Amino acid sequence: MHEQETALLQADELAEGIRLACLVEVSGPTTVELLAEKNMQHQILLSTSGGKAQIMPQLTKRYLEVDKPGLEDHRPDLQRIKDSLAQQGISVTKTHFSVLQKLPVVLRKDKFKVTAIVHEKELLGLEPGNTGDNLLGMAFDIGTTTIVGFLIDLYTGRELAVVSALNPQTRFGGDVISRITYANQNEHGLAQLHTAVTEALNTLIGQAVEQAKIKREDIYTLTVVGNTCMHHLFLGIHPRQVALSPYVAAVSEPVEAEPAKLGLEINPAGKVFMLPNIAGFVGADTVGVLLATELDRSEKSKLVIDIGTNGELVLGNKDSLFACSTAAGPAFEGAQISCGMRGASGAIDHVTFSDDLQFSVIDNVSPLGICGSALLDTVAGLLEAGLITKRGKFVEPDKVTNPTGQKLKERLIEHDGSWAFLVAQDPDGKRIMVTQKDIRELQLAKGAMAAGIRILMNNSGIGYDEIDEVLLAGAFGNYLNPRSACIIGLIPGELEDRVTMVGNAAGAGAKLALISSEEYHRAAQLAKKVKFIELGSNPGFARIFANSMLLPGP
Amino acid sequence: MHEQETALLQADELAEGIRLACLVEVSGPTTVELLAEKNMQHQILLSTSGGKAQIMPQLTKRYLEVDKPGLEDHRPDLQRIKDSLAQQGISVTKTHFSVLQKLPVVLRKDKFKVTAIVHEKELLGLEPGNTGDNLLGMAFDIGTTTIVGFLIDLYTGRELAVVSALNPQTRFGGDVISRITYANQNEHGLAQLHTAVTEALNTLIGQAVEQAKIKREDIYTLTVVGNTCMHHLFLGIHPRQVALSPYVAAVSEPVEAEPAKLGLEINPAGKVFMLPNIAGFVGADTVGVLLATELDRSEKSKLVIDIGTNGELVLGNKDSLFACSTAAGPAFEGAQISCGMRGASGAIDHVTFSDDLQFSVIDNVSPLGICGSALLDTVAGLLEAGLITKRGKFVEPDKVTNPTGQKLKERLIEHDGSWAFLVAQDPDGKRIMVTQKDIRELQLAKGAMAAGIRILMNNSGIGYDEIDEVLLAGAFGNYLNPRSACIIGLIPGELEDRVTMVGNAAGAGAKLALISSEEYHRAAQLAKKVKFIELGSNPGFARIFANSMLLPGP
Repeated sequence: MHEQETALLQADELAEGIRLACLVEVSGPTTVELLAEKNMQHQILLSTSGGKAQIMPQLTKRYLEVDKPGLEDHRPDLQRIKDSLAQQGISVTKTHFSVLQKLPVVLRKDKFKVTAIVHEKELLGLEPGNTGDNLLGMAFDIGTTTIVGFLIDLYTGRELAVVSALNPQTRFGGDVISRITYANQNEHGLAQLHTAVTEALNTLIGQAVEQAKIKREDIYTLTVVGNTCMHHLFLGIHPRQVALSPYVAAVSEPVEAEPAKLGLEINPAGKVFMLPNIAGFVGADTVGVLLATELDRSEKSKLVIDIGTNGELVLGNKDSLFACSTAAGPAFEGAQISCGMRGASGAIDHVTFSDDLQFSVIDNVSPLGICGSALLDTVAGLLEAGLITKRGKFVEPDKVTNPTGQKLKERLIEHDGSWAFLVAQDPDGKRIMVTQKDIRELQLAKGAMAAGIRILMNNSGIGYDEIDEVLLAGAFGNYLNPRSACIIGLIPGELEDRVTMVGNAAGAGAKLALISSEEYHRAAQLAKKVKFIELGSNPGFARIFANSMLLPGP
Repeated sequence: MHEQETALLQADELAEGIRLACLVEVSGPTTVELLAEKNMQHQILLSTSGGKAQIMPQLTKRYLEVDKPGLEDHRPDLQRIKDSLAQQGISVTKTHFSVLQKLPVVLRKDKFKVTAIVHEKELLGLEPGNTGDNLLGMAFDIGTTTIVGFLIDLYTGRELAVVSALNPQTRFGGDVISRITYANQNEHGLAQLHTAVTEALNTLIGQAVEQAKIKREDIYTLTVVGNTCMHHLFLGIHPRQVALSPYVAAVSEPVEAEPAKLGLEINPAGKVFMLPNIAGFVGADTVGVLLATELDRSEKSKLVIDIGTNGELVLGNKDSLFACSTAAGPAFEGAQISCGMRGASGAIDHVTFSDDLQFSVIDNVSPLGICGSALLDTVAGLLEAGLITKRGKFVEPDKVTNPTGQKLKERLIEHDGSWAFLVAQDPDGKRIMVTQKDIRELQLAKGAMAAGIRILMNNSGIGYDEIDEVLLAGAFGNYLNPRSACIIGLIPGELEDRVTMVGNAAGAGAKLALISSEEYHRAAQLAKKVKFIELGSNPGFARIFANSMLLPGP
């Protein structure tokens, strides 16, 4: 460690292994973790009113030295504990049944020294001796495709580990509708989908525990966000109605559950907090985004775009918020695209059109396919180069007039009775291309989003001039090139210079609710405040959607 | 049915099969069920202030016709139900997790018609259609030796079935101390004892269900009483400390548990209510006795004696109540007595001494042994006839001077190096007798009870003149001859003319708490009000106990 690093970096940064790049001598193969996303999340995490969300987790631990019984003191064990807690200003009116069952044994294991775990007015757990030092929690963002978990020290708010995995429910269907269909058509479908996701969480919890070198039992709290379908499946509620008009959720208010009821392996005295849904598919993940981006506290109007397998849109300010959900489909995540893939190692993630095509590949390896952000770049580039029309149709090579187009038109290849555009070749010589059908898929996806934005603006009466900021949330939103997004019309061109990327804001919101009871309760208020717009039943949706399929260009 | 019976009996009595003995012609072998105990319980059940306890069970059922969702009504399912309940004046702030999981399916099973089960502010259950007609509960009195259960219609308060069984925990030990020892010395001892009693309850529930021709799922509530050790074992709490000075319970306040947590097979949306303990071994059964006998509302002082394997005593009035527990031992129940047996078919239950011995046998069959009440009668008779001394020692046959004694002394037989008294012979010619050791056992048992009464009187400052009534509770208390009890000094002779038998008052209290939420909450207040006197640590206990072993005579 260089002495200047010791001087310039803070103690907790040093502890996290943060170094100053200019002072580190690289002596061999090294993995450099960029702080871009980390800082972004950190920034969001700290961006609640007053600068920092006050750390005040839902569960508290109290170390107690309980009075021992005597011939003049016949109080039952439970009363002793309640009296000790009362001396610390904590009133308990309910006791978890499991605490009762082991009460006399635990209390006497370490000479009437115990640590009590309390949630609101309920005594949830009791541990022998002083275990007050360990109080950890995890925030989970259950996406249709990806699950991300953050392990947090609930005393300091420090992030100890980040873990992620593909949502194993994908084996039952790539999108929410196909999973709901699976649950409908198979006797044990719901149970399979439910177990798939809870087991994935158990695995991720295990990984986080290992990374941070802690014990599973030190984790007492989980906060979980996800869209309404993920919400229902995680809780084991049949999501059938969420997919059927009028798209009614079973429950929208926050749900609190014992870990054991969900088969989750954390401290059994802990608690799982599921953030509230808004309506339709606009679920707890969007509530998380709003918590983190504080739309409900903003004087000026903002537009939040959370792009995942489903796209959620929220427009508004502290006075009113409007939200809708669009079945964007998985095109943005590279699925159902001929050479598409997730944004993983080997994916072409950005493409620029100049004299020749240039692209970058994740991990700088040989390209294997293209991910969503590169698809956007390619279609935007093809449009600018005059290789496709505003309707998304390939121009016959001999009719290309644009100079850049002329240089690139040799990349047009015949494919499936139409044209396709060759982006690269993989190591085996297999062609990585964007086909006519891929462009249609993208148009459908972006058209749905653009129509959603249009309808939110119509309903809220908020015009382009009044939108102060466009916040792009979600992994995809964080990687796309905003210019490309505006050229293809995913985001209205009028707003291009107001785009800010906010990273995994849903996860950041889950983290806020994890470390702050106040933020968790704010989520319930916030969810009720949002006015849900059901796109399908909105007059004029079909026309707006059709128009939104067009590619506006720069 | 005679027309006079129709005129004189009430409809519900006729329905129960009650007849007027004077009008029934017996045409063959007939079992006559005497109403003594039944009426007694009935009387107690109805003896709360104002005549009748208001029927107001803890759980309520509400039939709801819930609004169907529509394009303009996106309320989540749960909100719809809450809104419907609110229209009936019921506010729900908590929902049981199992309700959430099946919510959308149950709600749509019968076209948005459902029946909600609510406890306080929690939605416990939801059933398709209108099931409002069925709301049953059971009250259980878990005795050390016997378990009794009462199946009650919670709408009418009507008793639909009474079932009973030996407590299967007896195979691990006859009294509470030996069971606690078993739990201490065997790794799975606690679990075995816990499961033994919960399985017994499941069996009894099954029998009650069959008798009343109802479904198990129609039972939603159980109230349970038992002494502190039975309380702990039923809930799965280790009772070790209850048997160790200073005899501290794990929990005394009322405990509410989900049936599934105790492995009890009733409607899973139901609830089990365990009445509170007082202290030491003075448990929820005594609270039940006090609920039923209303000592806490009595202007005049009363003494309650509940004799079982353990004996509990309460003395006082509405201003103050004093309680203690005595390890009477199982002598009163015929255990550890050479020819002893429970009060079952074939037991000699009453003995009278005149020119010759006369006795009655339960079910009028040949005698098989003697039960507790007959043991009392015999020892009292031996004392009156001058065949034993006040110290309980047999008088040598040639020194007997009392005329009755002279007639009966030929029944004195040599046994084990001492004398014994022959009561009868069983069909095989086996002698049914009372030995010197049996008399010692009875002296120990009655001595403990008498000492307890003495110490309660000393502590409360209540003298014989002030005791308005002596209430004998428990099966044994209901069968014994009060005169015999006074002659041997189990009950002070001064109080002989004030003795009233109140039957299974503990069970009656459990029934009150079952049908009336108010009575259940009164139990908690009542339990706190009672001042517990720990006999062992009471100065002078040893001397009082030794004196109480004497047999005072008539």
